[in-house]
Amino acid sequence: MALKLYRGNLVFTVSKDAFTLVPGGYVAVEDGRVAEVAPIFPEKYRAAELIDFGDRLLLPGFTDLHLHAAQYPNMGLGYDCELLPWIEKYTYPVENRAANLDYARKIYGALLRDLWKNGVTRAVVMGPADAASCDLLMELYLKSGLSCYCGKRHADHPFNKFPCESTADSLEAARALLEKYRDRSPLVKYMLNPGFAPGCSNELLCAVGRLAAETGAPVHSHLDENRSEVALVKQRFPRDETYADVYLRRGLFGQTPTVMAHCIHTTDRERSLLRRHGVYAAHCIHSNLDLQSGVMPLRRYLDEGIRVGLGSDIAGGHTLNMLDTMRAAVAAAKMRSVYCGEAPVTLSEVFYLATKGGGSFFGKVGSFEPGYEFDCLVVDDASLEDFTERTLLERVERFVYRGDDRNIVRRFVSGRDVPEPRDL
Amino acid sequence: MALKLYRGNLVFTVSKDAFTLVPGGYVAVEDGRVAEVAPIFPEKYRAAELIDFGDRLLLPGFTDLHLHAAQYPNMGLGYDCELLPWIEKYTYPVENRAANLDYARKIYGALLRDLWKNGVTRAVVMGPADAASCDLLMELYLKSGLSCYCGKRHADHPFNKFPCESTADSLEAARALLEKYRDRSPLVKYMLNPGFAPGCSNELLCAVGRLAAETGAPVHSHLDENRSEVALVKQRFPRDETYADVYLRRGLFGQTPTVMAHCIHTTDRERSLLRRHGVYAAHCIHSNLDLQSGVMPLRRYLDEGIRVGLGSDIAGGHTLNMLDTMRAAVAAAKMRSVYCGEAPVTLSEVFYLATKGGGSFFGKVGSFEPGYEFDCLVVDDASLEDFTERTLLERVERFVYRGDDRNIVRRFVSGRDVPEPRDL
Repeated sequence: MALKLYRGNLVFTVSKDAFTLVPGGYVAVEDGRVAEVAPIFPEKYRAAELIDFGDRLLLPGFTDLHLHAAQYPNMGLGYDCELLPWIEKYTYPVENRAANLDYARKIYGALLRDLWKNGVTRAVVMGPADAASCDLLMELYLKSGLSCYCGKRHADHPFNKFPCESTADSLEAARALLEKYRDRSPLVKYMLNPGFAPGCSNELLCAVGRLAAETGAPVHSHLDENRSEVALVKQRFPRDETYADVYLRRGLFGQTPTVMAHCIHTTDRERSLLRRHGVYAAHCIHSNLDLQSGVMPLRRYLDEGIRVGLGSDIAGGHTLNMLDTMRAAVAAAKMRSVYCGEAPVTLSEVFYLATKGGGSFFGKVGSFEPGYEFDCLVVDDASLEDFTERTLLERVERFVYRGDDRNIVRRFVSGRDVPEPRDL
Repeated sequence: MALKLYRGNLVFTVSKDAFTLVPGGYVAVEDGRVAEVAPIFPEKYRAAELIDFGDRLLLPGFTDLHLHAAQYPNMGLGYDCELLPWIEKYTYPVENRAANLDYARKIYGALLRDLWKNGVTRAVVMGPADAASCDLLMELYLKSGLSCYCGKRHADHPFNKFPCESTADSLEAARALLEKYRDRSPLVKYMLNPGFAPGCSNELLCAVGRLAAETGAPVHSHLDENRSEVALVKQRFPRDETYADVYLRRGLFGQTPTVMAHCIHTTDRERSLLRRHGVYAAHCIHSNLDLQSGVMPLRRYLDEGIRVGLGSDIAGGHTLNMLDTMRAAVAAAKMRSVYCGEAPVTLSEVFYLATKGGGSFFGKVGSFEPGYEFDCLVVDDASLEDFTERTLLERVERFVYRGDDRNIVRRFVSGRDVPEPRDL
């Protein structure tokens, strides 16, 4: 890929504590990665093609650290239930329907267009249990130009009235998909998704842990989302000290790169395990409010140095809009500040979580520092005109609070300008 | 106005406890008011013009029960502060700038287009302190075709470093505007807006109360938003038992129709006064989270029979999107359910608040019951397609959780189809 120079108002977060703002700055991109950021025209890149975005904002792409692809049609439905009845009544039926590949192609296409629209350049995706359907999803992801870790959901334990797969089939399918996507693309990679502990047999969890160790494949599951779920896990795995220990003892908690969704009702020990094992907590605030699960103590997680990113958790959450998710995370932290006396979180902190925080699960992703893959959103905030001269920081605040997908006019993934994935 | 018959999927809330859903129903409208709702073609209106909206949804227009017009440019800015420093640092400067009429015309135009876009057919508006600017706002409102109660903000007490008006000027301006708009239009009416108690002298509050009694003009102010503000009021008015009593003793608490914004930190006595005097509480959830003010106990207000509507409180709040406000009200009530053990609120309850609850401040507004003014939003939810047959209730859930202004394709106010107010 040739050397390119992009110009615009650069907005990113090297650390969570402050925005890095470069008005009218330049990003030199070589082979899809940032070579340099410069506040004035960098003479040494004089030969590079210059793409000037004028007064627009350039931000790193967003990472959604937890979503369920097959649940896409259920977004916004059924929030009269808490988690376990919601799974039974709403989620398993729509998850199981994804085994129909004609239907699945439609909903995955709609999902990918929605992710594209919202600037979600990277996602950690819990696929359907059906292996063929998961394969289709990954093929469509490849075609879209967006990036993901994705895997079939393992579910061999009768958690509710719906049929489940056999342990052997579940493992075999994962092995085959791991193999298939090992070298297909750096943007679409297979990961191991042991659904959630109550939906898996002990034998399967242990075998998935061994498969992770053997292949280095990343792991993605759920932790401490809802009090009834925590009680159910305690009942199913009485010899494990905590929910996190269930995964840890089976090789599924940081032995390879790991994302755990929710992490609301964690004990001190569990937070210490999250930190020590470098496990990512996906903070899924909309879902946690919609299903009345509770609110992760985000301030505490950040202060304790636990890795955190933001997740939509559709269809527990109702939107893929990462700006909305950032706003909700700030609002929920302010609510915890009112009720629990914790300090709130700042805008730069949630921006960091939506970009570099979650992006780092993919490597050097989510920032414009040298060496980072050039995932970039070009934002036109002219429609937010307020007849007032604004600083770049105020424009960022205003975009996060008042903007939406209509303001995102271009999306780059790893240096490539990705058009809308219309025909998938 | 001729008799008209509108056809579509009718969605409204006669009571807060359930949606009234009439798939493929008819609304007969005569002289801007609903004559009848019928589930099948009503023969007796055979002669009426039929406007068929096919598979679209028809909902009552939304009412925003509390917003500050002059603060429109500040939406999304400054949420690092709590109320009192936020007023000093962000709000008074932008409020005072609205005295410049060229600038004010631009921001009021943008505000009215934004309200129109979001289907906010009715609003209770706190205007600027500057009388000429408030007059301009009301003239533009008239031109827009939308409906409001609006009034200049009274502010004769030195609450911060900014200059304030004289008591006599403040009253004189209100009298003149009251007179001017008394018979101009049923859609745009003057109301008395004694800013908030700390910004008004005792003399002014008493005089505004007398003016309300004399003219019957409605009243609109703030109550129990923030703990520091409550303490300030206690200090300014030590002889009044509660914040609500400050208004009540001066004729500003239900003696004429009254809206009080926020009502978060109310005492038992204050809630009892709200109920007994039929005062409306404007629940401004986004603002209350953005400024870390706290969360009104909505469940309790509903159970105690207090009149409630939803308010954006821009620019304390960051959006005029009433769907977003409804979602946030449900989420905040769920959070209170987690932290305070209160039962949450339902979707039909917040829909009621956004339509009939707030609308009833304007009379028979916010429902499709006979006699109600025909304020109606036509919603095209085809873009929310999820490849699944949905009930009308599911479509409503989906629209509230996933829809936005793009789905609202027509807006009627009191029977009139209101086009976008482009040139104000």
